Amino acid sequence: MPPPRGAAPPSVEILPVEGLPEIAAGDDLGRLIAERAPALRSGDVVVVAQKVVSKSEGRLRRLSEVRVSARAGRLAARLRADPRMVQAVLDETVRVVRDDRVLIVETRHGFICANAGVDRSNVPGDDVVCLLPTDCDGSAARLRDRILEVTGTRVGVVISDTFGRPWRLGLTNVALGVAGLSATVDYRGQPDDFGMPLHATLVALADEVAGAAELVMGKTRRVPAVVVRGLEADGGDGGGSDLVRPAPLDLFR
Amino acid sequence: MPPPRGAAPPSVEILPVEGLPEIAAGDDLGRLIAERAPALRSGDVVVVAQKVVSKSEGRLRRLSEVRVSARAGRLAARLRADPRMVQAVLDETVRVVRDDRVLIVETRHGFICANAGVDRSNVPGDDVVCLLPTDCDGSAARLRDRILEVTGTRVGVVISDTFGRPWRLGLTNVALGVAGLSATVDYRGQPDDFGMPLHATLVALADEVAGAAELVMGKTRRVPAVVVRGLEADGGDGGGSDLVRPAPLDLFR
Repeated sequence: MPPPRGAAPPSVEILPVEGLPEIAAGDDLGRLIAERAPALRSGDVVVVAQKVVSKSEGRLRRLSEVRVSARAGRLAARLRADPRMVQAVLDETVRVVRDDRVLIVETRHGFICANAGVDRSNVPGDDVVCLLPTDCDGSAARLRDRILEVTGTRVGVVISDTFGRPWRLGLTNVALGVAGLSATVDYRGQPDDFGMPLHATLVALADEVAGAAELVMGKTRRVPAVVVRGLEADGGDGGGSDLVRPAPLDLFR
Repeated sequence: MPPPRGAAPPSVEILPVEGLPEIAAGDDLGRLIAERAPALRSGDVVVVAQKVVSKSEGRLRRLSEVRVSARAGRLAARLRADPRMVQAVLDETVRVVRDDRVLIVETRHGFICANAGVDRSNVPGDDVVCLLPTDCDGSAARLRDRILEVTGTRVGVVISDTFGRPWRLGLTNVALGVAGLSATVDYRGQPDDFGMPLHATLVALADEVAGAAELVMGKTRRVPAVVVRGLEADGGDGGGSDLVRPAPLDLFR
């Protein structure tokens, strides 16, 4: 990845992991996925929705136990939001980017997203919200290692979540955590089809893998994990953090 | 699309269209793709790289014929860029969004991207640049119609290009033009797995399809078209313009 120039173009398949139970804190998510995935092959990439990773890691919070600060109260009044939810977001935040109609923040990981990824959907109980994993690349590496232990197969792992973006409507899945594959493919300096060097083409491979996975995951089908086959994950040691634009390269801070 | 709740999760396949020749102005791109694609099925989505669409439509420009304005000259000096290239970009631009290190502009279509999509890579000749199609949704609809004429099969068509984005490193493929499928899937108000309504979940389906396609297209493999199978394109009359965030909803203008 990138494949050798001139190699036959591969096909890619996106296969659902069916029958996963509702995940709770302490569940052995790697084993649960490994046992239900289509027979895994070396080079497969297993994409896992952030929500089940967070649930397995106990990254849940009861709103009834959140103490609301004055700042969260003011923001909530303006946003017409639940002050406890706003506080839960601020507790995951290092920088508020926008607070006009929706809270767009920078998380501790460096992700810029709505509500710091704190989310109430597909979480049991009225009162519970789900937080992003603390260390998404670490979570991905643990899942990769556990799947290797259970199946003997070395796969790549991507932990995905749906984020919005400026300028374009709609959310797309992106890669929060990555293990066992390169998060980006760097075509810079490679020759194009006419032998001229390509400029400025660093492709966010893991984000495209996450987006592809979403086509099968959907939102309401209880398919929080899929296998992407055909990419031949390179075992690279990249991480989802490679996809976070460093502040000096961000024209839109 | 979205699929019926409870339906078996589908698999998705991404298949290369192999053996396309170099495309020139006036070529019957729809026929060329239809003749080389794996046997098309109703509901398939054919994703076509913008560059071959533009080439077939003659959307090329010789830099030697570009007259450079004073403004382009000043910008080019600051950006250390070819003034003719800067002028070609400005000629496709309705608004300059950033001009610090790279020209990020709004095109006539409303897309916000680097260099208005004007690009020198994979274009024959030192002196020629490729422009985006004038009407990407129209181009997609014509390809859909032509593929239907040639094969008798009704497919969806997505015209894709790679754009950068704020906050995250690396480019991803997005959908510029869409025909024969809904560009977005609206989960808002649908019940989640616990029966609670989902909030704020409008998924940019066509962008995810474009991103998935890029996994097979690559940049240097002469695979400017792929078939995405398993989505069951709904024949919807959405367009790539549905993915352009209207100014009043854009917090980052």
